[in-house]
Amino acid sequence: MSSNSFGHLFRVTTWGESHGAAIGCVIDGVPPRLPIAEPEIQHYLDQRRPGQSRFTTQRREPDSVRITSGVFEGVTRGTPIRLIIDNVDQRSKDYSEIKEKFRPGHADYTYWQKYGIRDYRGGGRSSARETAMRVAAGAVARKVLGDGVSIRGALVQVGDKVIDRSKWDWDEVPRNPFWCPDVDMAGQWETYLDQVRKSGSSTGAVIEVVASGVPVGLGAPIYGKLDSDIAAAMMSINAVKGVEIGAGFDAASLSGEDNADEMRIDNSGAVRFLSNAAGGVLGGISTGQDVVVRFAVKPTSSILAPHKTVTTGGEETEISTKGRHDPCVGIRAVPVGEAMLACVLADHLLRHRAQCG
Amino acid sequence: MSSNSFGHLFRVTTWGESHGAAIGCVIDGVPPRLPIAEPEIQHYLDQRRPGQSRFTTQRREPDSVRITSGVFEGVTRGTPIRLIIDNVDQRSKDYSEIKEKFRPGHADYTYWQKYGIRDYRGGGRSSARETAMRVAAGAVARKVLGDGVSIRGALVQVGDKVIDRSKWDWDEVPRNPFWCPDVDMAGQWETYLDQVRKSGSSTGAVIEVVASGVPVGLGAPIYGKLDSDIAAAMMSINAVKGVEIGAGFDAASLSGEDNADEMRIDNSGAVRFLSNAAGGVLGGISTGQDVVVRFAVKPTSSILAPHKTVTTGGEETEISTKGRHDPCVGIRAVPVGEAMLACVLADHLLRHRAQCG
Amino acid sequence: MSSNSFGHLFRVTTWGESHGAAIGCVIDGVPPRLPIAEPEIQHYLDQRRPGQSRFTTQRREPDSVRITSGVFEGVTRGTPIRLIIDNVDQRSKDYSEIKEKFRPGHADYTYWQKYGIRDYRGGGRSSARETAMRVAAGAVARKVLGDGVSIRGALVQVGDKVIDRSKWDWDEVPRNPFWCPDVDMAGQWETYLDQVRKSGSSTGAVIEVVASGVPVGLGAPIYGKLDSDIAAAMMSINAVKGVEIGAGFDAASLSGEDNADEMRIDNSGAVRFLSNAAGGVLGGISTGQDVVVRFAVKPTSSILAPHKTVTTGGEETEISTKGRHDPCVGIRAVPVGEAMLACVLADHLLRHRAQCG
Amino acid sequence: MSSNSFGHLFRVTTWGESHGAAIGCVIDGVPPRLPIAEPEIQHYLDQRRPGQSRFTTQRREPDSVRITSGVFEGVTRGTPIRLIIDNVDQRSKDYSEIKEKFRPGHADYTYWQKYGIRDYRGGGRSSARETAMRVAAGAVARKVLGDGVSIRGALVQVGDKVIDRSKWDWDEVPRNPFWCPDVDMAGQWETYLDQVRKSGSSTGAVIEVVASGVPVGLGAPIYGKLDSDIAAAMMSINAVKGVEIGAGFDAASLSGEDNADEMRIDNSGAVRFLSNAAGGVLGGISTGQDVVVRFAVKPTSSILAPHKTVTTGGEETEISTKGRHDPCVGIRAVPVGEAMLACVLADHLLRHRAQCG
Repeated sequence: MSSNSFGHLFRVTTWGESHGAAIGCVIDGVPPRLPIAEPEIQHYLDQRRPGQSRFTTQRREPDSVRITSGVFEGVTRGTPIRLIIDNVDQRSKDYSEIKEKFRPGHADYTYWQKYGIRDYRGGGRSSARETAMRVAAGAVARKVLGDGVSIRGALVQVGDKVIDRSKWDWDEVPRNPFWCPDVDMAGQWETYLDQVRKSGSSTGAVIEVVASGVPVGLGAPIYGKLDSDIAAAMMSINAVKGVEIGAGFDAASLSGEDNADEMRIDNSGAVRFLSNAAGGVLGGISTGQDVVVRFAVKPTSSILAPHKTVTTGGEETEISTKGRHDPCVGIRAVPVGEAMLACVLADHLLRHRAQCG
Repeated sequence: MSSNSFGHLFRVTTWGESHGAAIGCVIDGVPPRLPIAEPEIQHYLDQRRPGQSRFTTQRREPDSVRITSGVFEGVTRGTPIRLIIDNVDQRSKDYSEIKEKFRPGHADYTYWQKYGIRDYRGGGRSSARETAMRVAAGAVARKVLGDGVSIRGALVQVGDKVIDRSKWDWDEVPRNPFWCPDVDMAGQWETYLDQVRKSGSSTGAVIEVVASGVPVGLGAPIYGKLDSDIAAAMMSINAVKGVEIGAGFDAASLSGEDNADEMRIDNSGAVRFLSNAAGGVLGGISTGQDVVVRFAVKPTSSILAPHKTVTTGGEETEISTKGRHDPCVGIRAVPVGEAMLACVLADHLLRHRAQCG
Repeated sequence: MSSNSFGHLFRVTTWGESHGAAIGCVIDGVPPRLPIAEPEIQHYLDQRRPGQSRFTTQRREPDSVRITSGVFEGVTRGTPIRLIIDNVDQRSKDYSEIKEKFRPGHADYTYWQKYGIRDYRGGGRSSARETAMRVAAGAVARKVLGDGVSIRGALVQVGDKVIDRSKWDWDEVPRNPFWCPDVDMAGQWETYLDQVRKSGSSTGAVIEVVASGVPVGLGAPIYGKLDSDIAAAMMSINAVKGVEIGAGFDAASLSGEDNADEMRIDNSGAVRFLSNAAGGVLGGISTGQDVVVRFAVKPTSSILAPHKTVTTGGEETEISTKGRHDPCVGIRAVPVGEAMLACVLADHLLRHRAQCG
Repeated sequence: MSSNSFGHLFRVTTWGESHGAAIGCVIDGVPPRLPIAEPEIQHYLDQRRPGQSRFTTQRREPDSVRITSGVFEGVTRGTPIRLIIDNVDQRSKDYSEIKEKFRPGHADYTYWQKYGIRDYRGGGRSSARETAMRVAAGAVARKVLGDGVSIRGALVQVGDKVIDRSKWDWDEVPRNPFWCPDVDMAGQWETYLDQVRKSGSSTGAVIEVVASGVPVGLGAPIYGKLDSDIAAAMMSINAVKGVEIGAGFDAASLSGEDNADEMRIDNSGAVRFLSNAAGGVLGGISTGQDVVVRFAVKPTSSILAPHKTVTTGGEETEISTKGRHDPCVGIRAVPVGEAMLACVLADHLLRHRAQCG
C-alpha cells in the first residue's frame, strides 16, 4: 500500500515537489526487452510542458526526462525503470507573500491540517507539477500496450462552451493550442480564454480520452473493474471533480431501450456493437469497443481577484494570487488523462495475462 | 492484490454468485472491542432488500445476515469478521431460455470472452446481488467511524426528472419508496416509474450521498486521494457510469471566483468555509465539510422489448427479458452508495491514524 | 493489505476460529476453466486431519470441505472460490479452567495485549486449526501449477533424532504415521514419541518440502524473491521458528568452492547443475532444480507438567494443560508446508506470466 | 504489488543497478514532522560502506546519501522521501571477460532465463549494492520507531567458527572489523579470514540482530505475523539462505518444558518472562521481550578457483572471478540485517496504530 503509487502489476511510484531539485518516478513490473528511449517519453512530456502558448502557465520548464535505471542497451530489463526530471524554474520568491495564507481551492489547508507542516512554495507535493511523471509513465505504458492500442484525448468543453460532436475531427486536435476537435469551437475558446486570462480569472473544462484497439476481456470483477480503476485514475489528477464512462451521467436520462448496445455479427464473424453507450466496458471488463472516458476539471484556484481566506495563525485575511498559472488547467490535463488511461490499461493487460494466459 | 477485495486497512473481500447457495464477505482490519450485533447490520440490509415496493425486483430474499467469526461475546476481536447471507429465492429456471444469448448491457459477453465460461443464471458473479455484502460491510464501517460521522443518501434524479434542491428535506427520504428528498418529485416519480414498469422498460438515475462529521485530514496524496478512492468505490457498483464530487461536472462551467470556497473563522475560532464547491475534499484530503458524492446509474439492461443480440455460438438473434428486475436500479443503489462511502472513510480513518497518530 | 490474506495474484484469505461454527477461505485470482472437485481438495485435508494415529490430537474433526462458490459445472469460473469446513468437535468445556491463565508459548498473552479481548477456547483465531484452510488452498494451488510440478514433504528430524539422508526413500513416507523417509528412523521416532506422549510432554521437529518440476524463471528481484516469499509462508505457519533453503544454515560453514553449484550442458542441450546447494533459487529466481525448503517447528506448548504463568488479572499462578493436543505438531505440519509451497509457487507462476508472458 | 517495494505502511521502493549512475529509494508512509538529516542516515551507510578493512571489497564507494524530497525545513513532510546515492567507482571493465559466462551461485543464469537480457557488469540489479538503500531506509525506520527501540546486530559465526555466547559483549562489536561480540573469536576470525582472502576463496556466516524495547502487541495474525515479515525481510537480503527467530532450529530438539517461556509479575506489576526461547514473538505478535533474529549467509560466489560453468550460447566453460569482492559477505550484512529489522518494526508500529489506536 502506498499513497504515492498507482497500479498493481504495472506500478508507478512518484516523488518530488514543485520547488524541490527534481521530480521522478519508479515504474515496476514492465515486461523485459521492450525497446524504449528517452525521446519517446519526451514526445509526450512536450505535449504537457508549460509555456507553449499564452494559455498556459509561463513557468519555463524544459521537462527533460532522463532514464537512469531499468533500461540496458536500449531495452527494458524487467527491473524498475527510474525516470527523473530536474526542476529548473522554481522561483520560490513568487510565493513568499502567501506563506501564511491558505489559498482557497488549493490543498494548502488540508495538507497543513493533516501533516502539520506547510510548503508554501507552489503547493509542494500537491502541485500539478507531479503530473509530468504521470505523462512519462504513460509513455512507458503505451510501450507495454503496443501499437495496436491508440489513446487520444481532446478538450470537449471550456467553461460552458461545449464542442459540436458532429464536427469532431481528430486531425484538428494538434492544430490548435486547446486540443479541440471542433475547429469552430477552437476559435471561440481562443477569444474566451484571452478574456479570462487578461482578467486574471480562470475557468473549468471537460476532457475526453478514447482508447481504441483495446482487446476484449481486460478488467475484472468486482473491485478490480476496469472502469473503477479508470475512475480512480482520473479522479487522482489534480483539480478533477468528476469522471464518466460512455454515456456517463446522461445514462440517468436514458431508457433501457436507448441505452442497450445491440449486437450483431459482422462479415468476418466477429461480434459488432451497434452503439457504445457502455463506453467500452461492461461488468468492469472491456468489450473491445473504444473505451471512452470524460473528466471534469475545476477552474484554476489561483486567481487575481481577492477572496476571503484565513492564515495558519487563525486570522481572517484576503488573498490574491499573482503567480504564473494556467487560466484553464484543463488544457494541459489532456495528455495527463491520456497517460492515466494508458497506465490503467497496461496494468490490466498484465493482470489479464496473469490469470487468463 | 485481489479483484474481489476493497480497501487497504479496512479491507472487504466478497464472494458468491446470484444463484449459488449463499453470498458472503470477510472484513479484515476492524479495530478490536467494537460492540456489534447482527441486527445493526440487518438494519441496513433491510433498506436494500428487494421486493419492498412494486418499484423493485420481486425476487423474495430475506437477506438475513449472520456473523460467523470475528466477533466474540458481542465485540469485534480484531481478527477477520465473516458475514454470510443465504440465497433463498434463486429460481434458476427463469434464465433457461437465455442460456446461450448475451443480454445487451449485461456482463454476459465480457465474462464469457474473458473467462470462457458462462453462468447464465442471473449473471453469476456479476449480479447486483453482490451489493448486499457491500451494504453489510458498510454497517461495520459505520461502527469504525463512530457516531460522529453520519452518512446519508438520496435519489436526486430519475430519468430526466431532477429534484428541486430548494425543497430538500432529509426527513422526507424514508417516507417514500424512492429515497427522494423532494416530496413533490416523489409523486412525479411514482407516476413515471409505474409507467416504465408496466411497459417493461427501465430508466436510469442519479444518487447523492453525503457524509457529515468527517474529520479534516482524511485522505492522502497522490494516488491515495480520498476522492480517488471514492470514485473507484462508486464506479465499482453495478451499472454506475459516472461519479462526481462537490460541484462535479458543473465545475467545468464555473469561473475561479465562483468555484472558490472562501474561508472565515467562526466564533469558536474554527475555520469555516462559506461554500462547498469542493464537496469536502481538497488535494485529496477531507476539509471537515460534508463530503458530497453523486453517481449516475444506467437503466436496467433487462427489458421486455426485444433487442438484437448474438449467441455464444456466433448466431444473430433477439432477446427479451421476462425475469424479475428493477425498473430503476438506482433506487436500491442508495444504500449501496452509502455503504461504499462508509467503507472508504473507515479505511482512510485507519490509514490516517497509522501515519499521523 | 490484509493480515489474513496470503499471496498476490493467487490470493488466499482465511477466516474462522478454533471454536466457531466453521472455518473457511476465499481464493481469488485462480485461472478459469480448471477442473476441480471437492474430493481432490479432501485428499490433502485427510492428510492433515487430526486423530489419524495416536501421535496426533484426538480432536475428532472430519474436516469435510465444501466448495460453495467460484466453481461452475466442475470448472473454476475465474471468480473467487470459497471453501468451508464446519467445526464439529469443539468441546469448549475443555478450556474453561484456563480461562484466565495465559498458556506459555501460546499466543494468549500477545493477543490479549494487542486486542484487549481473549478467546480462551482453543486459541481462537491463533489456533492451528486455521492451517486446514491452507491445505485446502494448497490443493487448488496444485491445480494452477499443473501436473508438471510435484510437491512432497517429509519429516526429517524429531527432537534430536535426525534421519539418515542416505536412506531417503519417498515411498516410505506414506507408510508410517510420521512422514518419515527413513524406515529405521521411523521406528525410533515411534518409541520416542510414545514416551513423549505418555509423559504429557512434547517435542519439536524439522520438516523438509521439495518441489520438483518448477520451471526456471519464477520469482522476482528484490523483495519479491521466491525464497523471501517461501520464508514468509513457512514462518507464518503456527509454531515455526526457522526456515532455510537449500544448504540453509549449513551454508555458513561452507567455502565458496563447496557452495558453488557448477553447471554443465546435458545431452539434450539443457543446462544441468552438478549440485543444488542453492535449493533451486538464485537471486530470488528459480533455477529449474528442485526447490528445497526446511522449517523447524517448536514443541507443542500445551504440556501436562505445571509451569509458571500469570493471569489476565495480573496474578502469578501455574498452569497444566490437559486438553487434546499433538505431542509433536511437526507431524501434521508436513501437509501444511507442502500447501504453503504450492501457494507461493502458484502465485509466482501467475506473476511470471503477467510480466514475462 | 511491486517486487521492488518492501513493507505496507512504511513502504520502501528501491531502484538502480550496480553499474548505473546511481541507486536510490522512495520511502512512503513516514509520519510527518520527524526531524531527520542526511548525517543521521550517512551514519548507518558508513557502517556498511565497502573498503573499510581488508576483509571487504576494495570497491571505493563513498556512498554519500542525499535527501532530495519529502523533507522540508529539517522535518519529514509525510509525503514520499527520496534518497539517492551516486555510483562512483563502477569500473565496468572488470567484468568484460565474463560477459558471456554465468557465474555459479550468482543470479546471472536466472535473470537471463527470466528476462532474456543480461547485465554482466557486477550483477546489474541483483548486485548487493542495492542493500545500501536498505540501510538508508533503515535509518529512517529507526526515526519512526523512536529512541525507545534499539536495534543492534553482530556476527556470531564465520565458517564453522562460532562465538562463545558466554563472552558476549556488545561493547566489543564496534572494536573489531567483524561486528564480533566475542573478543577472542574476533582474533580467530582475523587469522582465518586472512587465509580465506589470500587464497581467493570465501566463507559463509551467521548474523544475529536484536531489537530491544519493542512494545508488546506489534504484529498480526495470520499472514501478517511479525516473524513472517521478518523472515521475508531477511531472506530478501542477497546471499541469505536461512532465517530463525529465538530458539530457531534448535527448538526442534527441545521438549515442551524446556521451550516454555514461563511468566511472572515483576515488582512494578508488569509481566516478566523467565526466558526467551520465543525470540520475542508469540502467535506472530511481539511479547515485549527482545526480538532475536538470526540469518545465515552463504559464502561469496565470486572466487578465484576456476569452476565449471556454461555460456549464454550454451557452451561448457570454466570461470574464475578476479574482481573486487568480499571474502565474507556476512560482515557487511550486519548493518543490512539491522536495517531490515528496523523497517519491519516501523511498518508494524504503524499497522498496529492503525488498527488498535
